[in-house]
Amino acid sequence: MASAAGLQDVQYLSSSQADERTKALVKKSSDVVLATHIEPRDDMLAERGRASFDISSLAAYLNGGLEKLQRIGELADLLHEQSWGNKSRRYYYGRQETYENALKAALGIWDLIRNKTITMEDAMEARKLVDFPGGLELHIGMFIPTLLSQASPDQQAEWLPKALSLKLIGTYAQTELGHGTFVRGLQTTASYDLDKQEFVLHTPTLTATKWWPGGLGKTSTHVVAMARLFIRGKDYGPHAFVVPIRDMATHLPLPGIRVGDIGPKFGYNGVDNGFLSFNHVRVPHENMLARFAKVTPEGKYVPPPASNQKASYATMVYVRATIVEGAGWALARSVTIAVRYAAVRRQTAAHAGELEVQVLDYQNTAADLLPLLAQAYALLFMGKSGMDMYKEFEIDRDQGNFDKLPELHAVLSGMKALSTTLASDGMEAARRACGGHGYSLLSGLPTLFTHYVQNVTWEGDNNVMLLQTARYLVKRLLAAQAGQGSPGGSAGYTANAAAELRQRCPAQSARDWLDPAVQSAAFRHRATRLCVEATRTLAEASGGSVVFEGRPWNSNTVDLIRLARAHCLLVLHSTFADSVAKMAAEASVAAPAIAAVSKLVSLFGLSFIAREAGDFLEDGYLSGQQVEWARKQYYRCLSALRPDAVALVDAFGLTDYQLNSALGRKDGDVYRALLAAAQASPLNETEEGSAWDSVLKPRLNKPRSKM
Amino acid sequence: MASAAGLQDVQYLSSSQADERTKALVKKSSDVVLATHIEPRDDMLAERGRASFDISSLAAYLNGGLEKLQRIGELADLLHEQSWGNKSRRYYYGRQETYENALKAALGIWDLIRNKTITMEDAMEARKLVDFPGGLELHIGMFIPTLLSQASPDQQAEWLPKALSLKLIGTYAQTELGHGTFVRGLQTTASYDLDKQEFVLHTPTLTATKWWPGGLGKTSTHVVAMARLFIRGKDYGPHAFVVPIRDMATHLPLPGIRVGDIGPKFGYNGVDNGFLSFNHVRVPHENMLARFAKVTPEGKYVPPPASNQKASYATMVYVRATIVEGAGWALARSVTIAVRYAAVRRQTAAHAGELEVQVLDYQNTAADLLPLLAQAYALLFMGKSGMDMYKEFEIDRDQGNFDKLPELHAVLSGMKALSTTLASDGMEAARRACGGHGYSLLSGLPTLFTHYVQNVTWEGDNNVMLLQTARYLVKRLLAAQAGQGSPGGSAGYTANAAAELRQRCPAQSARDWLDPAVQSAAFRHRATRLCVEATRTLAEASGGSVVFEGRPWNSNTVDLIRLARAHCLLVLHSTFADSVAKMAAEASVAAPAIAAVSKLVSLFGLSFIAREAGDFLEDGYLSGQQVEWARKQYYRCLSALRPDAVALVDAFGLTDYQLNSALGRKDGDVYRALLAAAQASPLNETEEGSAWDSVLKPRLNKPRSKM
Repeated sequence: MASAAGLQDVQYLSSSQADERTKALVKKSSDVVLATHIEPRDDMLAERGRASFDISSLAAYLNGGLEKLQRIGELADLLHEQSWGNKSRRYYYGRQETYENALKAALGIWDLIRNKTITMEDAMEARKLVDFPGGLELHIGMFIPTLLSQASPDQQAEWLPKALSLKLIGTYAQTELGHGTFVRGLQTTASYDLDKQEFVLHTPTLTATKWWPGGLGKTSTHVVAMARLFIRGKDYGPHAFVVPIRDMATHLPLPGIRVGDIGPKFGYNGVDNGFLSFNHVRVPHENMLARFAKVTPEGKYVPPPASNQKASYATMVYVRATIVEGAGWALARSVTIAVRYAAVRRQTAAHAGELEVQVLDYQNTAADLLPLLAQAYALLFMGKSGMDMYKEFEIDRDQGNFDKLPELHAVLSGMKALSTTLASDGMEAARRACGGHGYSLLSGLPTLFTHYVQNVTWEGDNNVMLLQTARYLVKRLLAAQAGQGSPGGSAGYTANAAAELRQRCPAQSARDWLDPAVQSAAFRHRATRLCVEATRTLAEASGGSVVFEGRPWNSNTVDLIRLARAHCLLVLHSTFADSVAKMAAEASVAAPAIAAVSKLVSLFGLSFIAREAGDFLEDGYLSGQQVEWARKQYYRCLSALRPDAVALVDAFGLTDYQLNSALGRKDGDVYRALLAAAQASPLNETEEGSAWDSVLKPRLNKPRSKM
Repeated sequence: MASAAGLQDVQYLSSSQADERTKALVKKSSDVVLATHIEPRDDMLAERGRASFDISSLAAYLNGGLEKLQRIGELADLLHEQSWGNKSRRYYYGRQETYENALKAALGIWDLIRNKTITMEDAMEARKLVDFPGGLELHIGMFIPTLLSQASPDQQAEWLPKALSLKLIGTYAQTELGHGTFVRGLQTTASYDLDKQEFVLHTPTLTATKWWPGGLGKTSTHVVAMARLFIRGKDYGPHAFVVPIRDMATHLPLPGIRVGDIGPKFGYNGVDNGFLSFNHVRVPHENMLARFAKVTPEGKYVPPPASNQKASYATMVYVRATIVEGAGWALARSVTIAVRYAAVRRQTAAHAGELEVQVLDYQNTAADLLPLLAQAYALLFMGKSGMDMYKEFEIDRDQGNFDKLPELHAVLSGMKALSTTLASDGMEAARRACGGHGYSLLSGLPTLFTHYVQNVTWEGDNNVMLLQTARYLVKRLLAAQAGQGSPGGSAGYTANAAAELRQRCPAQSARDWLDPAVQSAAFRHRATRLCVEATRTLAEASGGSVVFEGRPWNSNTVDLIRLARAHCLLVLHSTFADSVAKMAAEASVAAPAIAAVSKLVSLFGLSFIAREAGDFLEDGYLSGQQVEWARKQYYRCLSALRPDAVALVDAFGLTDYQLNSALGRKDGDVYRALLAAAQASPLNETEEGSAWDSVLKPRLNKPRSKM
């Protein structure tokens, strides 16, 4: 049973000084062991051999075309060759090395663009491949975009060229030590000094200290600071100011500025998230970003046009669309690693002399991993769809039409929450499914999780996001109840709620559950019911007409969040099913691949229906029998997809370079990779270890004493 | 609204060079901000003022008495003063510093025992308080205990004194790169050389490399290695051998030994988990641990007495009982931090000029945290109960009576899985409930999680543990169905399954759900139903009489795991309810504290019933109306417990020293603590940062180039 490759290992380990008689003795024992041994690489080859489809057309589709997929491969090779792009020591870095090397990587990509080795489009992919966020993240992602969107033409002329040529590095300082989500509560003040025509930035409390901005700690020379504008003692709320914070020659903080790194984090330690306080810091009048709101030199406040509020909503919506797409890829990475490892990992034989079982053949492992695989696909399609929705909106917006914004905002706020929660929880579940080795950084899985999981609490805390969606849904239902309902958009069901509540699931057999329409109908029914019930509860708590704030709202957020999540699952499932149908219609992906992905749609739907059956049973939409059928069909989907598991992760098209995982290697040679990476780790630099001389030796060689 | 302490901050930040006119301008703005500002410490004081009970008697009870609680406080003070016990830089250490300092801490505690500053009982607490596992973990926890339990008297005389005086350091090497759970599959061989009367240890494949043993990497000089014993080519399965691996003078690996650290991990990096391979390594005949199984010098195998198997089961069971207890404390720590922070953290005011809302007053935050608080209490009581069960068994065992072992094993295997999953998931949920600051290592929460979460995959993977419980339950039901049932033990319901399936929940109102017996009955009904269904499915898959292995078993593990989890939740809930009743009867805890903990029992039960309602609705045990009542009552429990939230975490009696958390401080002064800890972090050692000279300066001062 042992392959040739397996025997090479044995020879390698046996090349000792042992005499022939000893070798013969040991070989006799070894042969017994080797009779039930198989090389992981051979398992992986066999896995690929049994798949029902060729991955190439699907991989191309998921990656934006064959050319793009090939380009990603070329970029991975290119980046791997750069000193700053080599990942082989990534998991060994301490905090300081992480910060410095991440900065070098960011500058390295910047240089590749500048010397035209790669295009701007390549750079987007390169950042994902290198996967090492550093001190320039917010310079690129927030400082420059904020100048582009909120600075006046004069201001852009002043700062943009410097920002684009790295004569200065900026970040965006909004969040404070005591204020995240609630922007109106920011405490930093910007008081206008009429006499000098300057703003005085000040941090009046400890909790007003700016906290979190990426690159603020040690990298940035400038910030866009959000501060409450005061003119003649009157509070005009948060506005944006460009503030230089470090001396350009020495990089030391300017007078009145206290700035530094906020310390080590769960992950993302390449970025120097920072703190910042202002002690009566003056900036000239022209440093308030003035494309929309303005203060005249004489201290007259000119409010922004009404459309500006909507435009800034649109920016948030765009960010959330990118987060949804990112969630799919993040989960895809963890699932790729876990599925590949589960295919080559063998544990437990029922009888001596049998090969051990591939862990993916245990139903519980399949149930741990394959629904996550389905979720990753669902999120990728949702991400594409969200982007398409956003682009459609942009066309309207450029003609002053913001009609689609509320729907887009509602869907993408909740979807930001659902997608990042599914991805984070799924990444950790995938890690645990790898057993002990998933705990090693060398698996790649812990770092993927710790870097990613901040997504559930940043860019809008997930609970707050879901509550925004809930607010929209309740308003839609109230409008419908007042005779102003409309069937449009994802919440069209609110126009038809009373009829929907009387519906019952049409499934007459386990097989009927394979119809995506039957699955979607269940999700729709649940969302409708929860919307009606949450609205009723809220109305009762409001003592009549619904109040969307204060105690009535705050005391009913559990049901509201439950509603929003149910709505988003409906949207996610429908979008997945519709997207697969559309992909099939486009005919660029081969039919067998489509067939496999279609099974994932059912697995996605049925795994949720089976696990959350109570929501469908409570009002009798499903009978106990129908739930049993759904569960049975869910198990059948697991079995049906088992042979395609490796092919379906291969189709994500992720490179070994990007994954940087001993367990997730495409070739399945996981154990050799683990051992090699372990041996290279810094604690193994000396055989005796770093504690021998100073700590252990004095103790072990002490004269024996009595206990 | 601003307290005196708040104003101190303002003065501190305002001590600048600004002229009086500027200061007056800024003060006018600041006063507006300060009108809605409150100091966290003041919130914390108010929280303690509103609790319905005094914590002292409950804290004493949970910690084993007032004296013990006080001793813990003294130990915390003592440890904090030791150079190796000071935690102020703990979150800044890189891997190597972590390894070295953890080893120093382990040796430090060892010395305190030796110089009689602390007792052995103190040392148990001290290890928990210092909370810095290092290279001696398995020397203390496995090597010495294995010698005590499995070595012959002669062997003990040889190795124990050296181990106890640290003349050698040992570890326990069982797990291999390719073999964790399935011990029979170990590949390391120990071939007996009759001529020389020696065993030859050998690693015949890469996957046979020993992997994971704590302290193996760079600390241990000896191992107890589990290897398959071969005599005259015959395989006798895994046995234990003492093998010296390092030269006692130089600490270098001995000939034929390849050993090192397995590299960085998610957490637990103070421990040098190691790898080890043998290349024809000889040890003398007397190095096979020989208290039970033996090999005579002439090569005759003497099998262990039958009771030995049971005894080694008992050891595993004991370890699992300690894990259950540990799960309660682990969750208690994270929940203490998160609840305290949620009490002082304020976010969002409905209207300008209002104080922002304490986040614990949002229903969803309460729903995130208070059920976890209830789980922590449930697990602490379960841990005590599990230990009591184990001690009762020990008395029987010492008289050769192993009758209680199967029940004990079944309960504690599944409970190991349930408790560590609840604790791990709860710790991460508590972390996320803290928003952005939960992502900072300075909160303490990420490290608590990453250190702890290995519990779900080590000491028996949780799925495997639950399957052991499921096997027991199915066997009990089959016995009952064959007329050999018994009502005893946690699975007594199997004797009465048919009648139970006809039962329906008696609740007639939301109020009825407050009866723990009504809650327990629901959990019992679910376990019974799932047991009957899983057994039926398994029998069908087995084609008749139930097969507990191979394809029939492996293809039905999802339902079996579901059954085992349901069983363990029943046990956990009943034990919690019974323990609180017992505590009330003992009368050492004051009545108001008992009342608060009793509410936690209901919260615990109802939160699960509400969230997993489908399991109770599917066969009609609950009606939709009853589920609605349960949910309503669950929400009421959240409200009822809200004022006692801080008191209930205070009652865990955890010291600030142990928590080492900026967010979990007893005094609530979280923001000052975060800022202080951030400023002390190594990246802030210089104002300009470590990347300035070498990386940033050359770039920022470059002549401007075109983009």
